[in-house]
Amino acid sequence: MHETAAILLTLFVIFVAAQIGAEIAQRLKLPGVVGEIVAGCVIGPSALGWLSAEQIVAGTPLDVLAEIGVVLLLFSVGLETRLEDLKKVGRSAFLVGVLGVAVPFVMGSLWAHGNGFAWSKSLFIAAAFVATSAGITARVLQELGALQRIESRVILGAAVIDDILAMLLLGVVTSLQMGGGVSVGSLLLVLAQALGFVVIIGMVGTRVMRLRARWLDSPINPLSPLTIALAICLGLAFLSTEFGLAAIIGAFLAGMIASETHQREQLEHQTQPLLAFLTPFFFVLTGAKIDLSVFTSKSALIMLAVVTVIAVISKFIGGFLGALSLGRNSATIVGVGMIPRGEVGVVIASLGLASGVFSNQTYAVIVAMSLLTSIITPPVLAALLKRHAS
Amino acid sequence: MHETAAILLTLFVIFVAAQIGAEIAQRLKLPGVVGEIVAGCVIGPSALGWLSAEQIVAGTPLDVLAEIGVVLLLFSVGLETRLEDLKKVGRSAFLVGVLGVAVPFVMGSLWAHGNGFAWSKSLFIAAAFVATSAGITARVLQELGALQRIESRVILGAAVIDDILAMLLLGVVTSLQMGGGVSVGSLLLVLAQALGFVVIIGMVGTRVMRLRARWLDSPINPLSPLTIALAICLGLAFLSTEFGLAAIIGAFLAGMIASETHQREQLEHQTQPLLAFLTPFFFVLTGAKIDLSVFTSKSALIMLAVVTVIAVISKFIGGFLGALSLGRNSATIVGVGMIPRGEVGVVIASLGLASGVFSNQTYAVIVAMSLLTSIITPPVLAALLKRHAS
Repeated sequence: MHETAAILLTLFVIFVAAQIGAEIAQRLKLPGVVGEIVAGCVIGPSALGWLSAEQIVAGTPLDVLAEIGVVLLLFSVGLETRLEDLKKVGRSAFLVGVLGVAVPFVMGSLWAHGNGFAWSKSLFIAAAFVATSAGITARVLQELGALQRIESRVILGAAVIDDILAMLLLGVVTSLQMGGGVSVGSLLLVLAQALGFVVIIGMVGTRVMRLRARWLDSPINPLSPLTIALAICLGLAFLSTEFGLAAIIGAFLAGMIASETHQREQLEHQTQPLLAFLTPFFFVLTGAKIDLSVFTSKSALIMLAVVTVIAVISKFIGGFLGALSLGRNSATIVGVGMIPRGEVGVVIASLGLASGVFSNQTYAVIVAMSLLTSIITPPVLAALLKRHAS
Repeated sequence: MHETAAILLTLFVIFVAAQIGAEIAQRLKLPGVVGEIVAGCVIGPSALGWLSAEQIVAGTPLDVLAEIGVVLLLFSVGLETRLEDLKKVGRSAFLVGVLGVAVPFVMGSLWAHGNGFAWSKSLFIAAAFVATSAGITARVLQELGALQRIESRVILGAAVIDDILAMLLLGVVTSLQMGGGVSVGSLLLVLAQALGFVVIIGMVGTRVMRLRARWLDSPINPLSPLTIALAICLGLAFLSTEFGLAAIIGAFLAGMIASETHQREQLEHQTQPLLAFLTPFFFVLTGAKIDLSVFTSKSALIMLAVVTVIAVISKFIGGFLGALSLGRNSATIVGVGMIPRGEVGVVIASLGLASGVFSNQTYAVIVAMSLLTSIITPPVLAALLKRHAS
């Protein structure tokens, strides 16, 4: 009974803090998601402490709720994305994905090596600079009703490619760091698996759905289109982790598949209450994980500033160059949209800390950088989207 | 990453098992909830073992999801319940609540004492016979669209009274068991607090909502009626645990308050996807908690049969007598609707096990009885509601 009371109070506090944060942000003409992240920062362990550090680590109930929230978010983003539309921007998305990984990786390695790290360690650190987190950008695009814009499609397509490359890169640097060589064969196998997963689900899944959408209506449960779609979402989110990709990639593909059905609008409509209830947990926890105490040491502060600038500029350049064929304005939007880092950077940093490659300070800085990029991006992206209305 | 994959797989398995179970049950003309509970039994630790015992204990992510699911379920039941309607059946509901506690408590104590337990232990065991779990019955009533029937209102009103009395009883037996006396003054205080909570929230809350429903629309978030209602739901669910009541009582009151607003239909509509996604976790976990291995010992099996028969008959008699003023058919429905035990019985049994009052076998039998009543009731209740259509 006592545990139930404690968790209900925590859920209440997180949910209300998110609503208040979003409301204030929106009154200040900022995206609501900024307010939710800041709210998390405020109630998190390094400020008010209403959430303890133990409550928000991986595997806790709150963390699982947050994970479900971001999975559902990307599912709903997928629902608003047609495979046909993604194919049309395939070339740009591919370029943005590749350059958006290459530029930060090169700049990150050079910076780390310039700061005295051995090459194998430098490459590991640089890997933590690479992966874009689609969640933050997707939420801003959705809030502004901008998911149908060409830039949004490029960003979402690039996020899938970005994730595949980041996973490969992690495999390479881990093996280099452990003193092992890199087998081109095994890397190609990993690449083929991940690409195969995305392509098969994307192509075959959409085709099956187009032909067999009535299956969604066949169970007795009147909400069956939704429940079947949610089951597919959970299933593909799991499967994509088995192929080394982020869970949200599978959820996005599930949404994209479901968007081929005639029940699409109904599904979009029904997903809204789920997002309203569950995504705040993701964004509040994102904010709560920012360790504000890093900002009290001057050397860490300088390092954080440098790392964040490199992370922002390098990702922007990669995205901008990749999308240049869309024109400078659109390329700017794409470049900014790719900036947020997130879970994947944090995961790599955790691996680095556990294997002794990263000091505590390096770890804290990488995590803070990942989260800073998530706070910086939404207002800039929103302003750009409004200025260059399509 | 690995933990994320594991939890996503578990969520997928639970969710799909629930859908399959519900579908099969409904094709067999049984309520879907029976299928979800049986599905939990099948994938649970004592059968297939796809869910381990450690994954479903209190405080785990799955348990928290289940708790959120049942809280939202009772919130949505509250949304379909008007205070005015409850007041009309106040006298019957009160009688059903009081007799539905008194009869099982007396019969339970007599049985336990007759089996050689001392009086203080017997009263403790009997306390585990008492509390009705509104979740199961509410789900069946909702599935059959029967929440507007007079019997449903009596059952829901009685469930609130039942919960208050069960809480008082638990206080008494715990203190007797610990060798302490029972202070009438402190009991009256506990009673006054619980009643005060329910009455103030019920009366003042509904009045405020009737007058100030436009507050729900004032935030910028277009889903704000829902988000504010959900915040109130989580808040009252927590508060009711602070007053010693079950979380679902607070959630029910929150729904009842929100049903006074003009956004009521919109809220009912938006709550459906949340229920579709989250309540299966509650019912599957309910099933998964049934320890089937108890059924291999003959003495335990006999004890279980006797205890279940006493629990079913005593609760039925109490509910039936209390509701007799509605006529025999309605009284039968009310009596059956009150039969399911659930969390509260399990909680009392856990306290008994921890304090050494219950042996392992007694504990397992009480838990199995609580859950058996949850499986037996839905088909009987559904058949009765269909035969005596109002």
